[in-house]
Amino acid sequence: MATASAPGKVYLFGEHAVVYGEPAVPCAIERRATVSVKRRTDGRVRVDAPILSFEGVSVEFGEGPPRVDVPTDLARQGVRYIDAAVDQARGAADDPDAGYTVRVESDLPIGAGLGSSAAVSVATIDAAARESGTTLDPTDIADRAYQVEREVQAGEASRADTFCSTMGGAVRVEGDDCRTLEAAPLPFVIGYDGGAGDTGELVAGVRGLKEDYGFAADTIAAIGDLVRHGEHRLADGDIEELGRLMDINHGLLSALGVSSRSLDAMVWAAREAGADGAKLTGAGGGGCIVALDDSGATETALDYAPDCEQAFRAELATEGLIRE
Amino acid sequence: MATASAPGKVYLFGEHAVVYGEPAVPCAIERRATVSVKRRTDGRVRVDAPILSFEGVSVEFGEGPPRVDVPTDLARQGVRYIDAAVDQARGAADDPDAGYTVRVESDLPIGAGLGSSAAVSVATIDAAARESGTTLDPTDIADRAYQVEREVQAGEASRADTFCSTMGGAVRVEGDDCRTLEAAPLPFVIGYDGGAGDTGELVAGVRGLKEDYGFAADTIAAIGDLVRHGEHRLADGDIEELGRLMDINHGLLSALGVSSRSLDAMVWAAREAGADGAKLTGAGGGGCIVALDDSGATETALDYAPDCEQAFRAELATEGLIRE
Repeated sequence: MATASAPGKVYLFGEHAVVYGEPAVPCAIERRATVSVKRRTDGRVRVDAPILSFEGVSVEFGEGPPRVDVPTDLARQGVRYIDAAVDQARGAADDPDAGYTVRVESDLPIGAGLGSSAAVSVATIDAAARESGTTLDPTDIADRAYQVEREVQAGEASRADTFCSTMGGAVRVEGDDCRTLEAAPLPFVIGYDGGAGDTGELVAGVRGLKEDYGFAADTIAAIGDLVRHGEHRLADGDIEELGRLMDINHGLLSALGVSSRSLDAMVWAAREAGADGAKLTGAGGGGCIVALDDSGATETALDYAPDCEQAFRAELATEGLIRE
Repeated sequence: MATASAPGKVYLFGEHAVVYGEPAVPCAIERRATVSVKRRTDGRVRVDAPILSFEGVSVEFGEGPPRVDVPTDLARQGVRYIDAAVDQARGAADDPDAGYTVRVESDLPIGAGLGSSAAVSVATIDAAARESGTTLDPTDIADRAYQVEREVQAGEASRADTFCSTMGGAVRVEGDDCRTLEAAPLPFVIGYDGGAGDTGELVAGVRGLKEDYGFAADTIAAIGDLVRHGEHRLADGDIEELGRLMDINHGLLSALGVSSRSLDAMVWAAREAGADGAKLTGAGGGGCIVALDDSGATETALDYAPDCEQAFRAELATEGLIRE
């Protein structure tokens, strides 16, 4: 049996603007998906994924469509990532008929925009390929995990999530160019409202604003300039300055129409608790905010905030993929 | 006795950016200060102003500092406007030793950023000058009321508030240039959190961001571009488009650090009630939001919003100063 884990991520800066060629800075967080894979001789794939629903779900597939016991959308979606990741591993290991038993565990909330699908894809590809006798290099894993996301998300994927999950740390992404940044420790606190925006709709909304209004295009450009400024402040760990930039980034995202009542409420709960800064992370419209706070005050404040379903600390993950 | 009333105002677009030479669009609202003035022969000034505190306050002054029964800051501040306005009227009417009994009533909340001081100044100058036998033209009144605000606010005043209150309607202000805009009816709804930001601190905060970050300067420029676009949409009364621009303007103001938890909460209460758009109005940090909504839904939603102390409708006031 081979086991691998890979971290989720938050966007410190730059989501949405990254779609238009501006740089963005996703950061891996110390919350992981852990995947254990055992090769089977019957050519079938069996997935045990307690993460895919609150009760856990068991799925078996081989010929034909997967048989899912709890056919929720999240479960179906999760299985599609694992299916595609297994295919990548088969191809990489030149083991086309391999079957696997895949067990997925995760301390990342699913569908919250924290990159759980990328983490699962990365860990699954690595572990399954090793069960078939091939150890892939991280760049190859990141690329194959990106192909998985592209396939499952109908072409709408970014290299950032899978690169960040594979490599860990703070990442600079600009178009297809991804690289890691030197970064001091970052005391992230995350608040999750239990919901999710419609990413496609939110991206289309920003595109509409950009097409209609020059000042919306300028707002996107301002986010890019903010990122180009902020990326140089990671190495020295100036949390106060990074927080200030996060606050501004959140306002610019609000101007682009991708915040929500609950995201703004969580952002203010964090700021009033003394966070150095707070912003939505990811597509917006609902989901998660990320704050910077060395103390426990922001987590406590979010715990008590009516709009926050789940709050947790998650330091910057300096390691990405870990083989266990 | 001479009586005059003058309206308060909201900023449809452009506050804060206007400090840096960008245009802004304040709009007079159908909420007024009404001032009745009776000339006295004893050269003294007596102010009856039930608006200056919840209980009402009576102030008498002549030689030496005013004697204020309820020495709250708001009362002291209110009396300073009336004192300076009376001086303007004495000068304009060439009646330097005139005394007046001044009664001020207002349905504008005081210190909420809705321009109550400008409205009181405008109405007082007009009524007192008429009691001294001189009817001033509106441009002269607007200019004298601006001098009053400059004097009381230690040089920190904008011509916009007093021009808007004198002329009524929607106004375009850019630097010292103020003019009225053709505008269809605007169904404003106002929410007031009962507080107020520190205008000087907020303006200084924006200045700091602008000096530190090119993208903050670009954000200010984006507000200016938004105003230059939006000012042409007032005549045809495209409420939906104006609301969309208000939402963006609010986000850009948030990026400049001048929103607050309660302002954002009221903005979202309005949007979720179906308002066409909503934004903070004025200096920010607390105070008022303004929304556009033809229906009663936004007012009701704000009435029930925990962060809103007072909610009311206030259509665009097509008339400014009214002599009664």
